[in-house]
Amino acid sequence: MAKKAKSRQGDEKQLDELFHETLKDIYYAEKKILTALPKMAKAAHSEELRAAFEKHAEETEGQIERLDQVFSMIDETPRGKTCEAINGLLDEGKEIMSDFKNSPAHDAGLLSAAQAVEHYEISRYGTLRAWAEKLGLADAASLLDETLAEEKKTDEDLTQLAKTAINEMAEAA
Amino acid sequence: MAKKAKSRQGDEKQLDELFHETLKDIYYAEKKILTALPKMAKAAHSEELRAAFEKHAEETEGQIERLDQVFSMIDETPRGKTCEAINGLLDEGKEIMSDFKNSPAHDAGLLSAAQAVEHYEISRYGTLRAWAEKLGLADAASLLDETLAEEKKTDEDLTQLAKTAINEMAEAA
Repeated sequence: MAKKAKSRQGDEKQLDELFHETLKDIYYAEKKILTALPKMAKAAHSEELRAAFEKHAEETEGQIERLDQVFSMIDETPRGKTCEAINGLLDEGKEIMSDFKNSPAHDAGLLSAAQAVEHYEISRYGTLRAWAEKLGLADAASLLDETLAEEKKTDEDLTQLAKTAINEMAEAA
Repeated sequence: MAKKAKSRQGDEKQLDELFHETLKDIYYAEKKILTALPKMAKAAHSEELRAAFEKHAEETEGQIERLDQVFSMIDETPRGKTCEAINGLLDEGKEIMSDFKNSPAHDAGLLSAAQAVEHYEISRYGTLRAWAEKLGLADAASLLDETLAEEKKTDEDLTQLAKTAINEMAEAA
């Protein structure tokens, strides 16, 4: 059980490999999100939502830099691995932007898609932080925790904006 | 703005249509989850994790029945719509079950995939409940809230199991 990674067989993969695989997954996801956010900002009907997406794009750049540092802490090159979950989540956002383009419900839909993305990230960073702690990677755990706190704050901000969006909407029922 | 659904043009889609679309999305997702859970239970290394997945499969059946009721409350036939997000999330679980099949890290990985699915559901049900309230669908909001509470409880239970799983794992670093 205590073999080092380099001598391991496929059946003996350990937590450090799972950590590395999941790190590649979220790295890919963050880069895709960074590409999607300016499009979401442009599509937003409300100024507040546009500003929120622009702010989150800046934060995402910082989150990617933190991931670069975590890769370096485990002596790995920062590299992403296709994450179908984030592709699917972002596709849902695109679909809403297209289907509800001129609708008063557009921003409510876009916000719901953005919150699904935030929840994905919250789940991933929560897992990675726990694994980093178990692996004795205290500095990595601390960086992942910083990002986790930012994602939770973003989700709360989006919840507030969602309330405003549906309250400002003309009677829809 | 107050036009009824049947007379609306594509540009005038309203919150009730967004609600219906998102209901179809989570309906598809729950049915996929119901198919995936027995496979995840079978793959689990620990008895506790197997039992948790089996319990959640039963809960999921009840959640689908609640969705059937919500469809009926808006005079729509229960029908799913392909949700690429859940397909991607479940594919990640499959990949872990395959890549870490005999690894001591298997259950930690499977748990992380299951928690990502839970977070997706928590996000979706939170949104749907808020929209149901706005639309004056109090009974639907109440049903969606019951499911939301179950999903949050499941996520908490999985977090506990994840702690146990990584603590019981042989030294992995």
